[in-house]
Amino acid sequence: MNGRNIDDWIRKKRERRQNSTPDALFSGIISGDKTALSSGITLIESQLSEDRVLANELLQKCLPKSGQSIRIGITGVPGVGKSTFIEHFGGLFTNEGDKVAVLAVDPSSAVSRGSILGDKTRMNELTKNPDVFIRPSPAGETLGGVARKTRESIILCEAAGYNVILVETVGVGQSEVVVKSMVDFFLLLMLSGAGDELQGIKKGIMEMADALIITKADGDNVKKAAMAAREYKNAMHLFPPNSNEWIPKVFTCSSLDGTNMDEALKTIRSFENHVKINGSFERNRREQDKKWLSETLKELILNGFFSNRELMKRLKQNEERVAKGELTSFQAAEELFEAYQHGRDI
Amino acid sequence: MNGRNIDDWIRKKRERRQNSTPDALFSGIISGDKTALSSGITLIESQLSEDRVLANELLQKCLPKSGQSIRIGITGVPGVGKSTFIEHFGGLFTNEGDKVAVLAVDPSSAVSRGSILGDKTRMNELTKNPDVFIRPSPAGETLGGVARKTRESIILCEAAGYNVILVETVGVGQSEVVVKSMVDFFLLLMLSGAGDELQGIKKGIMEMADALIITKADGDNVKKAAMAAREYKNAMHLFPPNSNEWIPKVFTCSSLDGTNMDEALKTIRSFENHVKINGSFERNRREQDKKWLSETLKELILNGFFSNRELMKRLKQNEERVAKGELTSFQAAEELFEAYQHGRDI
Repeated sequence: MNGRNIDDWIRKKRERRQNSTPDALFSGIISGDKTALSSGITLIESQLSEDRVLANELLQKCLPKSGQSIRIGITGVPGVGKSTFIEHFGGLFTNEGDKVAVLAVDPSSAVSRGSILGDKTRMNELTKNPDVFIRPSPAGETLGGVARKTRESIILCEAAGYNVILVETVGVGQSEVVVKSMVDFFLLLMLSGAGDELQGIKKGIMEMADALIITKADGDNVKKAAMAAREYKNAMHLFPPNSNEWIPKVFTCSSLDGTNMDEALKTIRSFENHVKINGSFERNRREQDKKWLSETLKELILNGFFSNRELMKRLKQNEERVAKGELTSFQAAEELFEAYQHGRDI
Repeated sequence: MNGRNIDDWIRKKRERRQNSTPDALFSGIISGDKTALSSGITLIESQLSEDRVLANELLQKCLPKSGQSIRIGITGVPGVGKSTFIEHFGGLFTNEGDKVAVLAVDPSSAVSRGSILGDKTRMNELTKNPDVFIRPSPAGETLGGVARKTRESIILCEAAGYNVILVETVGVGQSEVVVKSMVDFFLLLMLSGAGDELQGIKKGIMEMADALIITKADGDNVKKAAMAAREYKNAMHLFPPNSNEWIPKVFTCSSLDGTNMDEALKTIRSFENHVKINGSFERNRREQDKKWLSETLKELILNGFFSNRELMKRLKQNEERVAKGELTSFQAAEELFEAYQHGRDI
């Protein structure tokens, strides 16, 4: 590098640092600057502890501007057509003047290097839409880490004026439960034809859904989809009612020819109306906040125990003693807790 | 009290104390003495810390003699006919030479003073059967407390030679999950005619069932019961397969005229055979042990935090600050954990 280049490099670095102070990011974010929003989320995703301090500062500033949105979780197994659905669904909102942010929760992407939203080209229209912001799932993270970062990203997106937050996740495993606990509305996409065993959808996930949509109801598939919808309607009828008194909707749609996509939009609008009138919208968010506080706290406390190597060794030993019938599970637990307390007293 | 009476009283008290040492109780229990077994369970249920020491000693002795049984959880809402079913079902086992212990998990009995098994007269035949031991749910306890005591009582019953353990619980709420985690086989009793919303049975409980039996399939009810069985069979077909590769059975029965009761017995026998051959019987018990160890340990650790009044006051404050939008849930949790750590360091 010659002198000129070094000067350039230093100037650029200084500019970048100036643009990435919490203050600068905040101004950018609330003025609708997507680059600032992206940088803010990158700051949130950073593993560096000095970035954590800055991220907390930024969040603090954004918090009062957040909350004014409908948060929608969207799940379904790979192949159900989530991207195509979101492409179409997102457009319906922006047509009505909404601003849409699309986030993802995908802990598997740590391994698969981003199976969802990673390939933005699958959402051609949306990426070009000025009223849409798309952000893939943070990579290399545990579910807990992804969840925290997604939740914090929602705050930033809302502060940036996005009033429809779509949180996409894959329909396999624990991530749905986590997404459910950060959204107002939970949408389950399913295929007709495949039994839900095949789709890997657990009953518990069906029970969480505020709407279940059979996708790809076009061409030869229309009849099969309608039949599947009827079956799921019956199955969901067996579930106990939700505390928000919303009756989950079941219907078919096609993102290809657009059939019934307006039904999906109408469902969201009518849900929002329903839960805002009966107070469960606000109540649910307060409960989610409390739950995240308490869950995070528990995680921190337990981590204090379970990250202790010596105690973990003793745990393994006690598990073996229980297996051999030398101790009951309760005795084994008491013994370990005493060791922990004793360690604390020293 | 005159001198004679006092002498009598002292003599009896001494006898009682001699009979209730862990050693004496253990000898009584393994020789099949029901009074000793009852006293042992009473010791386990005692809230006194000196009794806890003795109880642990007794458990230690009984442990090597335990485990040789099939543990069956039975649930269903009040009115489904659990007592009548158990009365008949228990008899089928003793007819084949088994010894049956009937325990109960009913945390609600703390309030209602024993809604299940409390009234032993409902099991007329069983109470008179020498091969049957019946013990109602410990009263005045939390679910966690009841669970621990029931699990420890199972150990004592098995040491006493009872090789069929029936654990009854009411079909409303969390107690099923707890019972599921201490039994080998989980049996759900249901009524025909009432939707399962009405029966308060959550989908999650249906999913846990190894068999679902529609009771009271007699008289005018036979057709309705058969129809309900068909419906439930279809609904359960939607659930993902169990890790033990057992396909849950659904059928009707009548405890009144005995119709199909042998099917219930056959189901248990065939289940036992199935899971013992494929190894999931032993695996499930090991997993249950590990889970109880880890759950108890977590409870003890978290209790160290959540029983601290000062920290609880600060938790409430932080919840309010989150609700006001002053902090994120995560920041609030970190702040509390730091306060906890700080308290520990002092």
